[in-house]
Amino acid sequence: MAGNSYGTLYKITTFGESHGEALGGIIDGCPSGITLDFEAIETEMARRKPGQSAIVTQRKEPDAVQFLSGIFEGKTTGTPIGFIIPNTNQKSDDYSHIKDNYRPSHADYVYDQKYGFRDYRGGGRSSARETASRVVAGAIAKQMLPEIKINAYVSSVGPIHLDKNYKELDLSLTENNPVRCPDEAAAVKMEEYIREIRKQGDTVGGIVTCVIQNVPVGLGEPVFDKLHAELGKAMLSINAVKGFEYGSGFAGAEMKGSQHNDLYNPDGTTQTNLSGGIQGGISNGMDIYFKVAFKPVATIMQTQDSLNNKGEITPMTGKGRHDPCVVPRAVPIVEAMAAIVLADFYLINKTY
Amino acid sequence: MAGNSYGTLYKITTFGESHGEALGGIIDGCPSGITLDFEAIETEMARRKPGQSAIVTQRKEPDAVQFLSGIFEGKTTGTPIGFIIPNTNQKSDDYSHIKDNYRPSHADYVYDQKYGFRDYRGGGRSSARETASRVVAGAIAKQMLPEIKINAYVSSVGPIHLDKNYKELDLSLTENNPVRCPDEAAAVKMEEYIREIRKQGDTVGGIVTCVIQNVPVGLGEPVFDKLHAELGKAMLSINAVKGFEYGSGFAGAEMKGSQHNDLYNPDGTTQTNLSGGIQGGISNGMDIYFKVAFKPVATIMQTQDSLNNKGEITPMTGKGRHDPCVVPRAVPIVEAMAAIVLADFYLINKTY
Amino acid sequence: MAGNSYGTLYKITTFGESHGEALGGIIDGCPSGITLDFEAIETEMARRKPGQSAIVTQRKEPDAVQFLSGIFEGKTTGTPIGFIIPNTNQKSDDYSHIKDNYRPSHADYVYDQKYGFRDYRGGGRSSARETASRVVAGAIAKQMLPEIKINAYVSSVGPIHLDKNYKELDLSLTENNPVRCPDEAAAVKMEEYIREIRKQGDTVGGIVTCVIQNVPVGLGEPVFDKLHAELGKAMLSINAVKGFEYGSGFAGAEMKGSQHNDLYNPDGTTQTNLSGGIQGGISNGMDIYFKVAFKPVATIMQTQDSLNNKGEITPMTGKGRHDPCVVPRAVPIVEAMAAIVLADFYLINKTY
Amino acid sequence: MAGNSYGTLYKITTFGESHGEALGGIIDGCPSGITLDFEAIETEMARRKPGQSAIVTQRKEPDAVQFLSGIFEGKTTGTPIGFIIPNTNQKSDDYSHIKDNYRPSHADYVYDQKYGFRDYRGGGRSSARETASRVVAGAIAKQMLPEIKINAYVSSVGPIHLDKNYKELDLSLTENNPVRCPDEAAAVKMEEYIREIRKQGDTVGGIVTCVIQNVPVGLGEPVFDKLHAELGKAMLSINAVKGFEYGSGFAGAEMKGSQHNDLYNPDGTTQTNLSGGIQGGISNGMDIYFKVAFKPVATIMQTQDSLNNKGEITPMTGKGRHDPCVVPRAVPIVEAMAAIVLADFYLINKTY
Repeated sequence: MAGNSYGTLYKITTFGESHGEALGGIIDGCPSGITLDFEAIETEMARRKPGQSAIVTQRKEPDAVQFLSGIFEGKTTGTPIGFIIPNTNQKSDDYSHIKDNYRPSHADYVYDQKYGFRDYRGGGRSSARETASRVVAGAIAKQMLPEIKINAYVSSVGPIHLDKNYKELDLSLTENNPVRCPDEAAAVKMEEYIREIRKQGDTVGGIVTCVIQNVPVGLGEPVFDKLHAELGKAMLSINAVKGFEYGSGFAGAEMKGSQHNDLYNPDGTTQTNLSGGIQGGISNGMDIYFKVAFKPVATIMQTQDSLNNKGEITPMTGKGRHDPCVVPRAVPIVEAMAAIVLADFYLINKTY
Repeated sequence: MAGNSYGTLYKITTFGESHGEALGGIIDGCPSGITLDFEAIETEMARRKPGQSAIVTQRKEPDAVQFLSGIFEGKTTGTPIGFIIPNTNQKSDDYSHIKDNYRPSHADYVYDQKYGFRDYRGGGRSSARETASRVVAGAIAKQMLPEIKINAYVSSVGPIHLDKNYKELDLSLTENNPVRCPDEAAAVKMEEYIREIRKQGDTVGGIVTCVIQNVPVGLGEPVFDKLHAELGKAMLSINAVKGFEYGSGFAGAEMKGSQHNDLYNPDGTTQTNLSGGIQGGISNGMDIYFKVAFKPVATIMQTQDSLNNKGEITPMTGKGRHDPCVVPRAVPIVEAMAAIVLADFYLINKTY
Repeated sequence: MAGNSYGTLYKITTFGESHGEALGGIIDGCPSGITLDFEAIETEMARRKPGQSAIVTQRKEPDAVQFLSGIFEGKTTGTPIGFIIPNTNQKSDDYSHIKDNYRPSHADYVYDQKYGFRDYRGGGRSSARETASRVVAGAIAKQMLPEIKINAYVSSVGPIHLDKNYKELDLSLTENNPVRCPDEAAAVKMEEYIREIRKQGDTVGGIVTCVIQNVPVGLGEPVFDKLHAELGKAMLSINAVKGFEYGSGFAGAEMKGSQHNDLYNPDGTTQTNLSGGIQGGISNGMDIYFKVAFKPVATIMQTQDSLNNKGEITPMTGKGRHDPCVVPRAVPIVEAMAAIVLADFYLINKTY
Repeated sequence: MAGNSYGTLYKITTFGESHGEALGGIIDGCPSGITLDFEAIETEMARRKPGQSAIVTQRKEPDAVQFLSGIFEGKTTGTPIGFIIPNTNQKSDDYSHIKDNYRPSHADYVYDQKYGFRDYRGGGRSSARETASRVVAGAIAKQMLPEIKINAYVSSVGPIHLDKNYKELDLSLTENNPVRCPDEAAAVKMEEYIREIRKQGDTVGGIVTCVIQNVPVGLGEPVFDKLHAELGKAMLSINAVKGFEYGSGFAGAEMKGSQHNDLYNPDGTTQTNLSGGIQGGISNGMDIYFKVAFKPVATIMQTQDSLNNKGEITPMTGKGRHDPCVVPRAVPIVEAMAAIVLADFYLINKTY
């Protein structure tokens, strides 16, 4: 139970280190007969891949997915879909300085403590490079659920918040700028801020908002496997995530019941949607929306104290190619994990 | 995969409806040879049970746990621990008015849609009464991990926030007042507010903060089963929860890397702890702390529109015995779920 | 992962020791809306229960099932079905002689080694009394699959073999005699043999054959979760089972391909059925049939050497109330486990 | 839950079709710090691979394993081990004749029924070629458990039975002949028989016996996950297996308790071992031994009727490269699955 699988009926298992030969995974449980749109998969990969714009890490990886099984004559066969994503731009030399050093707020120290040693190159398994495999599985999950629309976007970069809710936005504009904020004015400010932060050799956190529309009523299981509990776990499993809220979220904790309750329309929809499209852990057919908070990337291009494996504090300056702010590239990862969660519940719901 | 189990190696499966004959559960995977402190279990149950103070629901339930297996001569045997909690104070008549009616922001509608019909009495399976079984499993998990200290407390009631962090508080004072806020002055204000809200026939949300101390380094699995991802899922699976954040949380999304990074001391501890005791999904030995946001209880003692199963909007006034604010009773539930998550990872960690 | 659950989507988790307060279990994943026939459940319990005839153990247990949840107005609600079976006829004094003694070919020794100590009364958790809970889950699984016919019967008692295959038998006669052999002549010989063996203070093994008819094409998953692999596991998990074979079984290992292949009819059925209704792990619509071998009960009413926990060999004479031959009572258990396996795959198959 | 994973804590997930680009898998849960002997892995692969002798299929596959992750500087890191085995000798043209035809006693028909269509080349996912991935996982499991000795061998080919039990054999001789029977005289007869059968264009079944020595006391879980139940499932999941028995097996069903009971020695070992090294589902430290029955390969080089997808019976003559008898190549697969089961229980046992 080493934690490298997600899902029950639509299950993704991933493998791979940042600087190993390849990443990859196995998607088990994808129904047969789905004609895959490989271009759409590539598009998702391109949204996540490094080097896509001036405000993300400049590591160059084509992130080309090679499918090895489970697809025949362009269609899924119902058997497991194995795939690999070769690592082509491994500059392991960049990382020799961390072989014996634990970078602050990185997983280096706990890996050494837990496993006795670690593949230190680029963070090894703890690198967000692993999420490339999730995007593959998410892209296929999206194709499994063509009617459901999943749209994530950047709603905050550091102190710069988008002060509109998703209903006030045109979500089709998200890809129009490198920040992935569908509001042009806010996007400009965010991009400027990221450039400024990068100049300082610093990094900054941010928030991704995700909206899921056209979800049928009934997805999610009561008690432990509530739809929002799984969405929360899925999001919190993404590197650098510190918080998750859905519907009214933390603001809901300040409200009264008389304000918070969503009154019904005769057709079962609700007039307001503070519930965030989920009641008792089960989708009610209204829009699902949630926010995911990302901390700033730990590797900064400034000198900071680190700890070496002899228990000595030693100054270290960030090397390697890193994102000044992860949220633009996190958008497709959030969508991918949401798609995987929904695909799983969609299959589970068929068993009733 | 109907979602009524939690955990892999320390696994709790629960059953029971609010107004059925009994609730109960099975704890599978508890190691053998633990001498159980039954009084401690009762104490936890008493912290959760209804009718414990003037500011919670007045339903009277002794919540007496009957252990049926897995214990011999006072010690756990390693076999599954089956237990039941009889429901004694079922006033099902209170609920005949919701037989054909869907209360706003309750699970009535989605249950009917998903299952075709429902046990409508007291919310049936969607009632927070189910959490009694979790508290049993959590109380035993706590005894499995005597060195680890888990302390939750109320840090907000509606708009009233405790403006101290956990290090500024004496957590041993939490049980001194019915609100379960360890700061006396804040507790008084919170209690007054709850009384006021109840007078209005209304309800209010709140926040529970949880602190876990003395956690060994190494609990949690990389990638999908990160320690904080499981804590998040566990918390989000509790009724009425809308958000979860750990360490710096949503505030961390506003910070720069140079501010957020936790610099090391030579012994591997860190000078600050914005990480919240977890790096890359794995405990680093520092205190783990997180916040859980609860929405206001949906049942209010005011008249609101509901929907009946003929698609008609009909006014409904709340009946039954309900909490004006759930957070005081949620404190032991949050602790229980945290204990279950830690017990599970504690056992998983033994396999390395 | 302590092994007390079976199934994925139709999942049974059991608890309980032979001489504890009660046995019981939770059935999770049973679809909603099934009108339960409680009499049919009682009938299955009566087929398994002790004291039902002169050739089985004389322990008297009503084996009355109390359902505690998951059923409302006579129908399943889709929520977990919790149930208990109180132990009423606990003669724990019968077992004080084994407190410090390991009976030959019993689980006493390995339990003490694995868990450090054990509930020695009546074998504790290792007693076949646990199978009562399986019969409950199996009886409900049967009702979930009304079209599928599951018929088990005794085909061997010690050296006495029924020399007819299932097609030559009228399976409706199985319940006509206490041995549960549908061939009257063979049943008489078997019963006589069991009586003779019991007079000797001895016990004897036997074989149960099970036939499953009207199975739709497509149940079972390729590779690891083949239908016959799960059936095999389910049967081997029953106390005292030493072997499992389906279709041609061990005899098939002696055959040539030209003899063994089942040629098709135009409608997809096959002319012969050496495959036993399963191809590549997936049901092909033909009858599924398999055999389950049970060893003789280890407790005999003769004096045998045992080992005590000081490492001393000491003579011991069997006490307690035991079956001279388990197969008559094993018939409903075999059917129950088969029903559980089929119910699980039936639900899994809905996800394609 | 599409059935392509095996194990809980030592978990193997496989992918790949007979004539796809590659097979492969992910091993999740392998502890860190194991220095892998890659030559030993290659040796196991060579024992399974086609073309290794005159009596097996002449398909030529190097079966070279490429490890992609989870290994650093020659040692396991505790992260998932991803690997692929490229298919190099795909003669898909051999299979165009079965595109629309269902071969008797093959999985063609049920795959089409279950999935709507299939990758027909070489049996696709239902091909025993999948077991190559199992052998990789088994070879690593063996290295995880260096003290445990797992030895399988061929004990029957068709009607030719090895009339010695494992204690009368020198198991180190198994690899001395292409049949993998450690008794030279029997091996010669078996090989002659296989050659004769192949000349007839026919195939034949056989039996593999497996012996596991030096198993610590305590592996296996009571009730559903008994050690022999998992071994049984693991073996029955191998292509062409029709039966499994351990210890006394089916012969035990004919015995009396007074004959069958294994009396103790003072050190906890037993004088006889009809139990087969397992009591109540838990290893007792004695040798574990079991038999696995394989049916004859369905593809024969004779003309037989098949069914096409228009419901027509059409004659078909076997093409492609097939084994006349699978048991020689099944020996390493049986060992691999046994090693995987033991590795899983070994890790589970650490949690007590």
